[in-house]
Amino acid sequence: MNNVKYHIIGTSPPRVDAYDKVTGRAVFGPDVTLPGMLHGRLLGSPYAHAVIRSIDTSRAEALTGVFAVMTSKDMPSTQSSDAEIRYEAMNVIAGGKALFEGHVVAAVAAVSPQVAEDAVRLIKVDYEPLKPVLDLREAMREDAPIIHSELRRESTGPDDGEPGNVVMHFKYGIGDVEKGFKDAEVIVEREYSTTNVHQGYIEPQVATARWGPEDTLTLWCSTQGQFIMRQRISKLLELPLSKIRVIPTEVGGAFGGKYETHVDPIAAILARKAGRPVKVVMTQAEVFRSSGPAPSCIIHMKMGTTRKGRITAVKAELYYEAGAFPGSPLMGGARCMLAAYDIPNGQIEGFEVLVNKSHVTAYRAPGVPQSTFAAEQAIDELSEKLGMDPIEFRLLNVAREGTKTVAGIVHSSNIGAAEVLQAARSQSHYKTPLVGANGGRGIAVGYWGNNGGQSSCLISVNQDGGVSLVTGSVDLTGTRTSLAMQAAEVLGLSIDLVRTSVGDTDSIGYTEQSGGSRTTFATGRAVILAAEDVVAQMCGRAALIWKVPVDDVTYDGMAFTTKTDASKRLTFADVAARLSTTGGPVTGKGSIDARGWGPSVACQVVDVEVDHETGKVKVLRYTAVQNVGKAVHPVLVESQMQGAVAQGMGWALWEGYSFNGEGRLLNPNRLDYKQPTFLDVPSIDTVFVEIAGPNHPFGVRGVGEAGFTPTLAALANAVSRAVGKRIYNLPMSPDRVLQAMKVI
Amino acid sequence: MNNVKYHIIGTSPPRVDAYDKVTGRAVFGPDVTLPGMLHGRLLGSPYAHAVIRSIDTSRAEALTGVFAVMTSKDMPSTQSSDAEIRYEAMNVIAGGKALFEGHVVAAVAAVSPQVAEDAVRLIKVDYEPLKPVLDLREAMREDAPIIHSELRRESTGPDDGEPGNVVMHFKYGIGDVEKGFKDAEVIVEREYSTTNVHQGYIEPQVATARWGPEDTLTLWCSTQGQFIMRQRISKLLELPLSKIRVIPTEVGGAFGGKYETHVDPIAAILARKAGRPVKVVMTQAEVFRSSGPAPSCIIHMKMGTTRKGRITAVKAELYYEAGAFPGSPLMGGARCMLAAYDIPNGQIEGFEVLVNKSHVTAYRAPGVPQSTFAAEQAIDELSEKLGMDPIEFRLLNVAREGTKTVAGIVHSSNIGAAEVLQAARSQSHYKTPLVGANGGRGIAVGYWGNNGGQSSCLISVNQDGGVSLVTGSVDLTGTRTSLAMQAAEVLGLSIDLVRTSVGDTDSIGYTEQSGGSRTTFATGRAVILAAEDVVAQMCGRAALIWKVPVDDVTYDGMAFTTKTDASKRLTFADVAARLSTTGGPVTGKGSIDARGWGPSVACQVVDVEVDHETGKVKVLRYTAVQNVGKAVHPVLVESQMQGAVAQGMGWALWEGYSFNGEGRLLNPNRLDYKQPTFLDVPSIDTVFVEIAGPNHPFGVRGVGEAGFTPTLAALANAVSRAVGKRIYNLPMSPDRVLQAMKVI
Repeated sequence: MNNVKYHIIGTSPPRVDAYDKVTGRAVFGPDVTLPGMLHGRLLGSPYAHAVIRSIDTSRAEALTGVFAVMTSKDMPSTQSSDAEIRYEAMNVIAGGKALFEGHVVAAVAAVSPQVAEDAVRLIKVDYEPLKPVLDLREAMREDAPIIHSELRRESTGPDDGEPGNVVMHFKYGIGDVEKGFKDAEVIVEREYSTTNVHQGYIEPQVATARWGPEDTLTLWCSTQGQFIMRQRISKLLELPLSKIRVIPTEVGGAFGGKYETHVDPIAAILARKAGRPVKVVMTQAEVFRSSGPAPSCIIHMKMGTTRKGRITAVKAELYYEAGAFPGSPLMGGARCMLAAYDIPNGQIEGFEVLVNKSHVTAYRAPGVPQSTFAAEQAIDELSEKLGMDPIEFRLLNVAREGTKTVAGIVHSSNIGAAEVLQAARSQSHYKTPLVGANGGRGIAVGYWGNNGGQSSCLISVNQDGGVSLVTGSVDLTGTRTSLAMQAAEVLGLSIDLVRTSVGDTDSIGYTEQSGGSRTTFATGRAVILAAEDVVAQMCGRAALIWKVPVDDVTYDGMAFTTKTDASKRLTFADVAARLSTTGGPVTGKGSIDARGWGPSVACQVVDVEVDHETGKVKVLRYTAVQNVGKAVHPVLVESQMQGAVAQGMGWALWEGYSFNGEGRLLNPNRLDYKQPTFLDVPSIDTVFVEIAGPNHPFGVRGVGEAGFTPTLAALANAVSRAVGKRIYNLPMSPDRVLQAMKVI
Repeated sequence: MNNVKYHIIGTSPPRVDAYDKVTGRAVFGPDVTLPGMLHGRLLGSPYAHAVIRSIDTSRAEALTGVFAVMTSKDMPSTQSSDAEIRYEAMNVIAGGKALFEGHVVAAVAAVSPQVAEDAVRLIKVDYEPLKPVLDLREAMREDAPIIHSELRRESTGPDDGEPGNVVMHFKYGIGDVEKGFKDAEVIVEREYSTTNVHQGYIEPQVATARWGPEDTLTLWCSTQGQFIMRQRISKLLELPLSKIRVIPTEVGGAFGGKYETHVDPIAAILARKAGRPVKVVMTQAEVFRSSGPAPSCIIHMKMGTTRKGRITAVKAELYYEAGAFPGSPLMGGARCMLAAYDIPNGQIEGFEVLVNKSHVTAYRAPGVPQSTFAAEQAIDELSEKLGMDPIEFRLLNVAREGTKTVAGIVHSSNIGAAEVLQAARSQSHYKTPLVGANGGRGIAVGYWGNNGGQSSCLISVNQDGGVSLVTGSVDLTGTRTSLAMQAAEVLGLSIDLVRTSVGDTDSIGYTEQSGGSRTTFATGRAVILAAEDVVAQMCGRAALIWKVPVDDVTYDGMAFTTKTDASKRLTFADVAARLSTTGGPVTGKGSIDARGWGPSVACQVVDVEVDHETGKVKVLRYTAVQNVGKAVHPVLVESQMQGAVAQGMGWALWEGYSFNGEGRLLNPNRLDYKQPTFLDVPSIDTVFVEIAGPNHPFGVRGVGEAGFTPTLAALANAVSRAVGKRIYNLPMSPDRVLQAMKVI
């Protein structure tokens, strides 16, 4: 595959969205303005757990300039008999109970944000505060406050059918774990924890709704998927799908945090009540409080190895918060941890636990950084105990084609784990000795399964030989460009002749959300199908022009030619110029449910320096290695890898929700919730390993998430080696580092 | 065809655009607003003919709030060596000469319309006035002022290669005209004239332009065709097609007047100079002065018949104004006149003549109402002279399948002329005696060839069994609804399950403009192809679900079934709900160059009453009969027929540009230019003759224009019979009527 000569794939043309974003022209969710539009504001619960006895909205409704006030009574789906819909609705607006601090209990639409804010303050809610439960371990106790009394406790002990907060439990594994540990000569057993972190996107949750004739709704929103949003709104508003049009705006960051609905149904219901369009934008504090962080987790790991470095057994227990409603990335965390290894005996047990916090949502490779943080520290500690090079130790246990992972995944092709480790080892970074006395080097490996699925594409040929390309994939990361490049490659066009746009739900076929690192792979395949459709039709036109059978015409990306007459030669532009006299317009379509994608494995090497007086960790050097399949647009792939490391650094070193005992979030702002800035992040070297992904003509693999999976662990391993003590809990903030060093 | 049972075709569901238009939500051209947008204003020439010696824009440029000033120097295409492009450019903005009063000579973009207006007044233009030529006959004289010195006189006499204002001349015919007139027993020879009328759309000419990265242009405009606009802008701005995106807004009336570019390139050039988006909206006076009326015409007719009522010969000379630039609807006027008749010997000669007026543009069945006004009066006068019923006389000479018309068109199928005449004769209106002493009844027949051509469509299936339908056809007349109905018919869906939208040039395949009554026919065929594509794919999914060969599955619009197992039955919605588990999304596409469409023939009967003291014509009763092929949406078809009559009444009785001797338009406003209102127009009865059009599965024919062709003549025939004198010149205003009656 690497020998294939492409004319576009592998180059890095300017992103099609760059100019508009840099110059402020791009229309993000909050930029949407409609004639007569009202502004919505939210009222959140001050309690993390409380019965809502009554809500008096009369004074708010009476305020001049207020057009609509809503509570859960205006959203019947909060009473749905379908639990999934009911919980989704109740996450948007609290029903009988407020289940986390900031849980929306009412909303107002008024002529201005100020009037709406005033009106919100006039709403009187009569709460009966309940004891909240905030801690994973406490929530699992039998005497814990129960968040949803209708949910039975999953079998964590006696399966007694009692209400409980453990809402999912599973166990799976391979081999004979007991025997595996008997065979082990060195064993580590540790407990790790991570705290809640937010995706940290800059653009808040936002939606603008307008109703049209016959109960039709148009919704502009910042979402990772206009079609999934349409489905959710359809269920939450009990409105047929075909009555809803969702227009995705530019997205100012998502990272998994814009799959779910938050203000979207609120904007819709307020707009219907008000009879005017309504825009609802969350404040930054509301985003932190109620839009869903990544779960905090406790992970118990036991792992054993022979002295020669063969891991014989692993046992992991994963406890993941779900927040106030069921649903968490526990399963992904369990499936992807250790998936880059060949371990003969293993068992993974998972527990999903409700607590009185905002419902957790996806965050880049959801659930996997946490489980990898645990697994890769355990592996690292074993390699330390064996006195073995950490890459060497991992290579002795690496998964290959055909390996069955502890979670039961059989790798049907080479995932590139060995190649990624070897590439990391061969970097000058890894060969260069550490500088300074307080330094430490960590490495870690991570795995993300990637995704495929359903996508649609339409390509229309212009008379000048350019094409217009429409897909249903919201562009979070530059995918308009990477998709345009795939079309250009098949069509033999320069990239500036391909105009790419993102369709709304009325203008393009069903396409799943942008997430799971699926877009360049799956929508790419739809694009390739559409482009091939175009080429086939253009061959037909050339055949018509030449009056030869269509089978005689071929296209090599440079020109249409015939097999029999070398003098016959037409470029794409030549044929395009003659469309109107050869049968009319040419449009090509591609629709696919793309299966059989390849996962991505990443290995990262990091050097840190720890200030022994302050506990501050400074990242000196970072190398990110990844099996990227085929880097369609190397600069974009590099920026995905670098961005992942930067986010991971924040999670590892600084970020974390801080609650008081009542469940009140103490740091819902960007001053007290410390995210990395350019000042904190060093230049990050990237290394591509290009092992073609299966089932994509160019060998594309998703690249956006794998690079996020090992970062917490790599930094933890580096810090541990720097201070000589393991740190099992995140973030590795100065106080934690000093504690580990027993300095404080 | 009329026996076919449809479930949607032939019903009249609410127009999909009605609610938004009635409630003011629809976004028309002037409603477009962009962040940082500037407002453009135009400076028009006060002279109808003048050399532009120099333009001093310095004071305007210096005014605070002014961002850009442009003249023809900013539009190099005004100097293009390609005459077609050059004239189109010079029509937008005057080059070396101003060629009509109001001809744009400069434009300004400023922070507000007021500042732009102030700046326009600060522009100093040094004109050298030239003698204008305004009259058709005068313009043809050898000593007439020459409008374009580089244009040679077409052979109107000696073909001497001298400059001239006659820029097109043709002659065609059939049979032996001399012999035909020898065979005639009764001959009339008359000269008719019509004056300039405007399409009278309410929304002015408007465009908003914004430039993006790498010289890309986005243009929002009120146009009949986003793709033709893109082509024009590409040529006028010398910008590759693929750099331009044209987004059509809702159109507030067009009737042919929104094919051409006026403010669109001006907005684009101002925006480029200003570095900010610019919107340009014409004032009402600018619309009248410079956006192109229908041509005034002089038509000389000679026609002869036997006493038994067989027309033996016809000879017509058509003189059509083009305004200040070549191009007029002369050819259409010549081809469609008399096309409903079988006349053995005939000759039509056409002359297109330049005058110092705004370049003429299309107006509903362009050129045909004028030529039909002449032809149908001559026929009527012959029938009067023979003492024969006017319908009977026409039926004796009616065209049938296989007839070759005077203009050389052979009717390859039945155009329904006889059926339309017979239907008119059988109406109670025609059987009812005239009421009152001063009444007159007129009838006339008109013909419009209709059009087909290139269209594209995309249909995407939603999981709830609804579909989204995108076409490239701007909706002037309710075509979103008539297209959705065709999709619904093929797919077996109720109309509310089909969401229709109009794509922009980036989002759908090439589609010709909405005009020539082509949309419901040609785009309809693209829609049917797309719907059939969907049905075929859905059959495939049903086959997959049942695990049977796809050939076994059929769809009858109610359900998918198999030929072999009666128990297998799935609705469209059933299969749609399972798309995600049977291979992913289903989208269907249709692209077509639709040929072989059928023309439409109309016959109208009108009763008028003429006030012998004031000359005022009152329309008492009106019946419009038309071969509509198949009325997809009867209420829309009826409203097309009624709207055409209302517009024709205005043209016939009141409307007309009034120029002074210098070429200054005296009535560029809606007070002095009298269009009909609801107070002037009686209830108009409509009668559909449904003779299926060829090459459309439902028998659709275009219906928007044929009904406009006979109205001038029908009213003239009625007024003539009411006052006992023929009126040969339009409008038949009270003074003209009194003149004809020799009262004044």
